[in-house]
Amino acid sequence: MDRKQKEVISWIKKSETEAVELLQRFIREPSTQMNEAGIQNLVASKLDSIGCTVDMWEPGGEELTNHKAFISPRGNFTGSPNVVGVKKGKGKGKSLVLNGHVDVVPEGDLKDWHTDPYSGEFRDGRIYGRGATDMKGGNVAMLLAMEALHECGVQLKGDLIFQSVIEEESGGAGTLAAILRGYTADAAIIPEPTNMKIFPKQQGSMWFRLFVKGKAAHGGTRYEGVSAIEKAQCVLNELRELEAVRNKRIKDPLYSQIPIPIPINVGVIEGGDWPSSVSDLVKIEGRCGISPDETVEEVQEEFCNHLNRLAEKDPWFMDYPVDIEWFGARWLPGAIPQDHPLLSILTKQYEHICQQPPKVEASPWGTDGGLLTNIGNTPSIVFGPGVTQMAHFSNEYIELSSVLDCAAIITLTIMDWCEQPKEDQSDEKTSAG
Amino acid sequence: MDRKQKEVISWIKKSETEAVELLQRFIREPSTQMNEAGIQNLVASKLDSIGCTVDMWEPGGEELTNHKAFISPRGNFTGSPNVVGVKKGKGKGKSLVLNGHVDVVPEGDLKDWHTDPYSGEFRDGRIYGRGATDMKGGNVAMLLAMEALHECGVQLKGDLIFQSVIEEESGGAGTLAAILRGYTADAAIIPEPTNMKIFPKQQGSMWFRLFVKGKAAHGGTRYEGVSAIEKAQCVLNELRELEAVRNKRIKDPLYSQIPIPIPINVGVIEGGDWPSSVSDLVKIEGRCGISPDETVEEVQEEFCNHLNRLAEKDPWFMDYPVDIEWFGARWLPGAIPQDHPLLSILTKQYEHICQQPPKVEASPWGTDGGLLTNIGNTPSIVFGPGVTQMAHFSNEYIELSSVLDCAAIITLTIMDWCEQPKEDQSDEKTSAG
Repeated sequence: MDRKQKEVISWIKKSETEAVELLQRFIREPSTQMNEAGIQNLVASKLDSIGCTVDMWEPGGEELTNHKAFISPRGNFTGSPNVVGVKKGKGKGKSLVLNGHVDVVPEGDLKDWHTDPYSGEFRDGRIYGRGATDMKGGNVAMLLAMEALHECGVQLKGDLIFQSVIEEESGGAGTLAAILRGYTADAAIIPEPTNMKIFPKQQGSMWFRLFVKGKAAHGGTRYEGVSAIEKAQCVLNELRELEAVRNKRIKDPLYSQIPIPIPINVGVIEGGDWPSSVSDLVKIEGRCGISPDETVEEVQEEFCNHLNRLAEKDPWFMDYPVDIEWFGARWLPGAIPQDHPLLSILTKQYEHICQQPPKVEASPWGTDGGLLTNIGNTPSIVFGPGVTQMAHFSNEYIELSSVLDCAAIITLTIMDWCEQPKEDQSDEKTSAG
Repeated sequence: MDRKQKEVISWIKKSETEAVELLQRFIREPSTQMNEAGIQNLVASKLDSIGCTVDMWEPGGEELTNHKAFISPRGNFTGSPNVVGVKKGKGKGKSLVLNGHVDVVPEGDLKDWHTDPYSGEFRDGRIYGRGATDMKGGNVAMLLAMEALHECGVQLKGDLIFQSVIEEESGGAGTLAAILRGYTADAAIIPEPTNMKIFPKQQGSMWFRLFVKGKAAHGGTRYEGVSAIEKAQCVLNELRELEAVRNKRIKDPLYSQIPIPIPINVGVIEGGDWPSSVSDLVKIEGRCGISPDETVEEVQEEFCNHLNRLAEKDPWFMDYPVDIEWFGARWLPGAIPQDHPLLSILTKQYEHICQQPPKVEASPWGTDGGLLTNIGNTPSIVFGPGVTQMAHFSNEYIELSSVLDCAAIITLTIMDWCEQPKEDQSDEKTSAG
């Protein structure tokens, strides 16, 4: 490392207490959906204090809500602002988006928590609370990196664009809004909880809802009806077969350690309303993984075709085909080439800090990286300090040491990437606002 | 037929209009659970007008609610009276219970009805409304029979006991209360909707509730969890296997026309609450048929043993066995011997009226006949005018002609049965109240 690199790393090491306090302040803002204004004010103020031009706005408008990639349970984001902070570079360097979401999933049953989920308790090197891992810890790592550069007086060539977005947990409307407002760059890092693995590819996913039909009858003469619950079993078997077919195609070595690269998960089943009746309707809801090599439309077509083939196995489905809806959330898959320069820079800087090579895999879940890569034309890598298994669970926590390590790696990556000369053939990407 | 027989049959034929009006008055009392007082007042008044001693009481007390055969979603029957009318005989003849329930199941979605379900519309020979078939039509047939005997001055040797009970749809607490109050006899007829088939045996049934466990995980890494929905499929398969085993044993020729004599019907399935999560709990509710040759306890033991064997097929069930509850409704099975004299009398009188032999089968559902036969020591036959397929459905109706035919058959049966000499060895059964 050169002198400047050593200086920023040293600054980060000394900022342990500040990092804990910032993360605690973030956790103490219970930023579930519709409640993001508090934390966004904190983020805006922090970005302002480290020399960024700050843009804070409530997403909305037809360009957003009519966009083909828009998906959200709501169409109005009043009171739920996005925040973007731009640190302009000197010019001619590559720009970088640092993207993190502030929305957290609900805390669930309080009885399952050993502490107040919004207390931000710091104990034994861990900070506890809803969002600690997913992904306020990652956001703090990025802010620490930017602050280190600011405090150490590092002048970058490329622009640095910090996106603090809403709605990731619901499909990414916040990031889509940031993209549509012009906040794109030559590449992006998203520190979702990867346990410090590097994910140049991310599985996408979308939700499906199926209605399986039957014919009602009294349970005592159940042979006079057709049980939608029995027919639902055929559908579940078909989904497992489809999952097998789809995963057999995946040859990407990044998936070699993953038992089912693109799972089809059935999460909800509901049918019938009376024990003595033959049920005539079953609802099935689930999540279908999308590989980075597929489009949403391709997957939907294969999914529908496969379920339509049920009619060949069972004539019931000829007359009563399964109703298929795509509803609720959807996350686009994302992928950058294996030889993308950001990947090699991030790998190199990881090795600098951690003294070992990183694990490079494909993520088993979607992130806003799909939107940035595909819609924002901003190749994205997901890499962050939290542990996936803690996300969405009670007693969520993050290790302080991993936040600091991640901050250091991101800092060095920024210093490397934003000094790379902007290629002539690339679009002249600049930040708006 | 002798002169007296011809006279009562002629009286019934002339009473068509009265039969329609009585059934309409019954249907216009929407006697769903908790709302039976209105119709019971009508029944009591009718019984009084045809020379019966009337007993009207609200069931209750520990003898009832602590009885091993008691089952009901409620323990308090205030406002829901039973009615019994007794027509004492001259003595030395066999007594007969005529049992009918006044409770009806809810009307369901009004949109599915072409008319007000409580209007009692009479059109094209049919009377429409909730309860027309199940079983106010049968009750009217019995009352018409008793009225015919009264109006024609027929003096019977044996006692006639009319039981107008609540709670049949919930497992028979009304009939159990009548039995415990002393209203039993040498035999009983229950005109549930058999489409004029004679059911000397009735399938019993009881409800079960199963909880199938899994292990939660994110759907994107579903292989880290265990899907309770997948495990529920194993349980459903096991239930079908159990149903096959149980039905293979049934050799009774009365079941020869019935595809599945004692079905296991799964009516409800509910599991999971999020499409992107692996569900960790599925609830299954259903109805298990009980053959007339089995006890409730035997069936429960076989059922539990069979599900416990899942652990041999899948070690998951070793650590997480299926929770089994018996809940809600239960109907005891019932059977009388093939050579029971009431069966031959009823068959003979059916042939008199219908000019063809009746269909004699085992019923695919339980009735209060199980309680009367097994707890009340009153051998019961189920035989009535309604059509099973209309019971519990929208646009329920009954054919007036079948009500009148049934009334005529029951009248002749009463005249025959209650003239049979009371056997010395039989218990001296008399009516209380």
